[in-house]
Amino acid sequence: MDHDSTRSALRARDRILIRDVQPVTPLGLSPKVVAGDQVRVSARLVADGHDILAAQLRVRQGILRGSGRASISVEAMAVDHSGVAESLITLEDPGLYEFQIRGYVDRFATWRRDLALRSDAGENLEVEFAEGALILDRTLGSVPAPHRPLVRSAIESLRSDTCSEQVKFRAATDEALFEVAASRCFAKEMSSSKWYPLRVDPELAVFGSWYEFFPRSEGGFVKGARSWERLAAAAQAGFDVVYLPPIHPVGMTHRKGRNNTLVAKPHDVGSPWAIGSSKGGHDAIEPSLGTVADFEAFVDHARSVGVEIALDYALQCSPDHPWVTEHPEWFNHRVDGTIRYAENPPKKYQDIYPINFWPEDDNDRVALWSACLGILQTWIDRGIRVFRVDNPHTKPLAFWRWAISEVQRNHPEVVFLSEAFTDPPMMHSLAEIGFSQSYTYFTWRHTKSEITDYGQELAHAPTAKWFRPNLWPNTPDILTGQLRNGTPEAFELRALLAATLAPSWGIYSGYELCEGDPHPEKEEYIYSEKYELKDRNHDDPSSIWPFISTLNRIRRANPAFKRMDTLTFHDVDNDDVIAYSHVRRVGQEFNRVLVIANLQPDQTSEATVYLNREGLELSNGGPVSVTDLLTGESWNWSGYGDYVRLGPADRVGHIFSVSYGPLRERP
Amino acid sequence: MDHDSTRSALRARDRILIRDVQPVTPLGLSPKVVAGDQVRVSARLVADGHDILAAQLRVRQGILRGSGRASISVEAMAVDHSGVAESLITLEDPGLYEFQIRGYVDRFATWRRDLALRSDAGENLEVEFAEGALILDRTLGSVPAPHRPLVRSAIESLRSDTCSEQVKFRAATDEALFEVAASRCFAKEMSSSKWYPLRVDPELAVFGSWYEFFPRSEGGFVKGARSWERLAAAAQAGFDVVYLPPIHPVGMTHRKGRNNTLVAKPHDVGSPWAIGSSKGGHDAIEPSLGTVADFEAFVDHARSVGVEIALDYALQCSPDHPWVTEHPEWFNHRVDGTIRYAENPPKKYQDIYPINFWPEDDNDRVALWSACLGILQTWIDRGIRVFRVDNPHTKPLAFWRWAISEVQRNHPEVVFLSEAFTDPPMMHSLAEIGFSQSYTYFTWRHTKSEITDYGQELAHAPTAKWFRPNLWPNTPDILTGQLRNGTPEAFELRALLAATLAPSWGIYSGYELCEGDPHPEKEEYIYSEKYELKDRNHDDPSSIWPFISTLNRIRRANPAFKRMDTLTFHDVDNDDVIAYSHVRRVGQEFNRVLVIANLQPDQTSEATVYLNREGLELSNGGPVSVTDLLTGESWNWSGYGDYVRLGPADRVGHIFSVSYGPLRERP
Repeated sequence: MDHDSTRSALRARDRILIRDVQPVTPLGLSPKVVAGDQVRVSARLVADGHDILAAQLRVRQGILRGSGRASISVEAMAVDHSGVAESLITLEDPGLYEFQIRGYVDRFATWRRDLALRSDAGENLEVEFAEGALILDRTLGSVPAPHRPLVRSAIESLRSDTCSEQVKFRAATDEALFEVAASRCFAKEMSSSKWYPLRVDPELAVFGSWYEFFPRSEGGFVKGARSWERLAAAAQAGFDVVYLPPIHPVGMTHRKGRNNTLVAKPHDVGSPWAIGSSKGGHDAIEPSLGTVADFEAFVDHARSVGVEIALDYALQCSPDHPWVTEHPEWFNHRVDGTIRYAENPPKKYQDIYPINFWPEDDNDRVALWSACLGILQTWIDRGIRVFRVDNPHTKPLAFWRWAISEVQRNHPEVVFLSEAFTDPPMMHSLAEIGFSQSYTYFTWRHTKSEITDYGQELAHAPTAKWFRPNLWPNTPDILTGQLRNGTPEAFELRALLAATLAPSWGIYSGYELCEGDPHPEKEEYIYSEKYELKDRNHDDPSSIWPFISTLNRIRRANPAFKRMDTLTFHDVDNDDVIAYSHVRRVGQEFNRVLVIANLQPDQTSEATVYLNREGLELSNGGPVSVTDLLTGESWNWSGYGDYVRLGPADRVGHIFSVSYGPLRERP
Repeated sequence: MDHDSTRSALRARDRILIRDVQPVTPLGLSPKVVAGDQVRVSARLVADGHDILAAQLRVRQGILRGSGRASISVEAMAVDHSGVAESLITLEDPGLYEFQIRGYVDRFATWRRDLALRSDAGENLEVEFAEGALILDRTLGSVPAPHRPLVRSAIESLRSDTCSEQVKFRAATDEALFEVAASRCFAKEMSSSKWYPLRVDPELAVFGSWYEFFPRSEGGFVKGARSWERLAAAAQAGFDVVYLPPIHPVGMTHRKGRNNTLVAKPHDVGSPWAIGSSKGGHDAIEPSLGTVADFEAFVDHARSVGVEIALDYALQCSPDHPWVTEHPEWFNHRVDGTIRYAENPPKKYQDIYPINFWPEDDNDRVALWSACLGILQTWIDRGIRVFRVDNPHTKPLAFWRWAISEVQRNHPEVVFLSEAFTDPPMMHSLAEIGFSQSYTYFTWRHTKSEITDYGQELAHAPTAKWFRPNLWPNTPDILTGQLRNGTPEAFELRALLAATLAPSWGIYSGYELCEGDPHPEKEEYIYSEKYELKDRNHDDPSSIWPFISTLNRIRRANPAFKRMDTLTFHDVDNDDVIAYSHVRRVGQEFNRVLVIANLQPDQTSEATVYLNREGLELSNGGPVSVTDLLTGESWNWSGYGDYVRLGPADRVGHIFSVSYGPLRERP
């Protein structure tokens, strides 16, 4: 007999199997949870015998650097007859938490249930009363002091030589006693699950409107530059985040010229993603943009008008980056001694050296990874709370998992947006191991069926529990479909879709001016701002900035737009018209918004919309009223097939607020 | 910066995320695998960049007592473009194994792919050839000696000052070189999954025909007793297992009388589940059955005729069991000092004390659990390889997990049948933590929709990957539905269904004689053999033993009946007729069997059967021929709606062998 294995196998904590714990991802990590949102925590308890089971949910903060763990909260979970334990919890502050589910036999409740059964069967209950008194004795220690007299009095009755059986039975089954004595656990009888991670993110991790511009086209960070006006304009237009492409010194070696030519002319500014020059690397600011002090003032100003600045975290170096000479061991060398520049054969990026995250020597790796984390720390210290991460799928998952958790351990409010346009398993894995949100394929989804399938996936696929989308109609790298030489209506349509399908969306500067000059061979802009400065007239009267501002205002005013799992699609008898809604409960009310858009915005489309009334929480039937939040117009609808007409003369779409019943007469 | 966490986070082994590993159960345990069956092992590799990935599958034996681990086998896995690695493996011997999946970058294959792309793009390849030579250098150590000259010759060409680019390119892309040099892993570059358990069971764990009888009704184990004849009869009838209810000394205290009366008369034999008397406990044999030597001879005889003896493992004690006085600490005591007998209020089992698997003192637990394991060991030493476990759901899951793995570590051929008629999560959990197979709800599934739904669940639900069914139409505890006062046709029908729906089935003695006298209030037998001896005439000419023998013969001859996931149901236009098939590939052929049964066997039922041709691997269309394996009759069928007629005058059902094409003329 192997006594050691026997001893370890028979801990009392193993009596109850605690299985199917939720929420958890396939890798055993935390699904995405938002501060203030209700989270359902559950498990199934499986135990031998017929005893009544009870469960507790414990929540604690993850390890904080140097301070251990803190703030254990314990609450009783509801356990149903099939052993499913459940709690709804709400964590108000972002942070790394852990939860554990514990199960145990509810001795008092089991005894009371059996006592009633024995009584019905006419058994002699005398010894059972004594058993009950013993259980109450053992319970006393965990009963709060004010309730102890109640328990003591019950014990006295149960042990009394003079009380009748009827009196004892009444004492045993007293409801007030049950409230106090049930669900108490005896020492050593608790079975525990392992601790599961629960990362609570700030609202901005799920809901936000993003605006991207190149600060060098707007005069940099110097006080009074047009960039400062752009911050105010973005804030007024309801944007939450202003994202800046890399602001670091741009390399000279193999600098790209205008329109991505291989040889730069003297005044060409180069790609800001070719990071690093004699002026410094990822910690530095391109001198023509201003000083660190200018930048810090810029970030402060942004926050004062209500927007966060997002920086680009692009882990690659121009050949002129200080690391190239200081740490050649952090790069890939060819056999001829040269450093290998970035390539995806036969494509070449001669102005960039990729970093080798796996140098031979472990000490080099520690130094490199620490230096990469140090960049984040530097910018966090300068006020940055949002990072847009360039091509994370070309750097190790292990690095991101480590670096993001290191940052969020002290700064749980920091948000990471993954720019991984690659195969879904990688995109979903990056989200699962730590990225707050991700760019998506939205840019390439144009038809009704494409948008519907993708929206369903983003809202309801298993991966939706940890993959949070951010929808961009355009980026400096991407110009697709209807936006290529697009009409203002096309730009309005794609903005409407992005802003109302998902809680996070963004546009890259120039979108509001309907810039759509395409590169002839690639799905991107010709004369891209990546390689030159742009001088834009932000006061152009044909700008759709007012439309975009209205979208953002509507998004903020309607909580239903702030989550992804609220999405439902509705049947429409015309493939050029799409209809979808978001519904979210707010207190006792439902916030219901219904978007109907014309996917051929340069033509007029007529259609009948058949509401999915269950999806809209309108199961009760009867007419509804719809009010267009873009225009203020209202209609009475049957709610069972209603006519819409959308065309360039009127509108690209509706954003309806939906209510039960006909419109009320205005007084 | 926290160097320790950096260091631990950046092991090279973490470069490739190895996720979604299969096969594995929700608890991270082994699904059910059978010796000789092909098992698909797979995972998804997710890694940064665009390198070509390779994977290895490693399989080793689990820890054997005192001998460490052994027999690592390593094989290359196929990796597809989306990173899914897959191997089909077959383990020939039962045992506890573990597997691990390792992933790494295929340096040579990646280099060769890129070389071709660079060549197409017209790049200068000189440095690339040198890179390739370096990769081949590093590969050499892992290349088998006979292939090294090939690699060395390629290195020489690549480094040659005289070879032309064309010659070098040809050397680099040589297919024989690729076969040898691709998929080699460099030191430190291997990412490893954890080790996953893989338990390989004997065939008997999945496929077997069981026959249960009370040896005390057949004269015990003494040589020449009728029991010995029953073994031979069971073997001749194609049974694989003969299961005996407990054979231990039966307690006297509160012994149950005939028909479960509370007071036994002097000659009443008592329930064999009231284990233990002054003659001994679970290690002992009831003296009236014979000696240990008699029993061992009986077991030897069974094996010599081709059947395994299954013993009942019932962890409970009569008040007279030696443990009650030797180890009172192993039982539940009431406050008045008495031991609590088994009950499920208000039901009482006065002749049984349940064991308390969680005594206060840890040492008591070690002693108790070890003693329980010791019982298994004792009977294994006496030749037993199959245990039918009584009510495992009233004993801790933690005990079973430990005890079964302790037994199977040295005796992987031992099979455990779980007698848990309880809620599905417990039944499935018992299966997941170690039981080879389980009794089922078959006994209570009578209508076509009930049988279809349950069959689908047993064959195709996620739990089917670890929950193996054993279907019993009756047991000493259960007599249901059509079997209560049932006709021979009803007994034939339920046997036909049990024997052909699932790979394991069993009957309790008396079934073949169509014994069906019901208890008036419970779904069991009146004057149950649990409380008295039965004297049966096994030569009764109305016995359905020949029918049962034929069922077992057909089961053995048709491999399709030997697995559960082979099951498909077929449409029939009459709710009284059910049709289902099993199909299994055997070499290049399909073994196809189709069962059609009359669920109202005392009436004639006519129906049209619409074959699910895809489910039968008959997608090609055209006529089929069906041959009844019960009678030898054959028919030509269209395969698109065929007539059957089943009734008491002819048959309760067909077991067809199905083939393509019309019947061949007999010569």
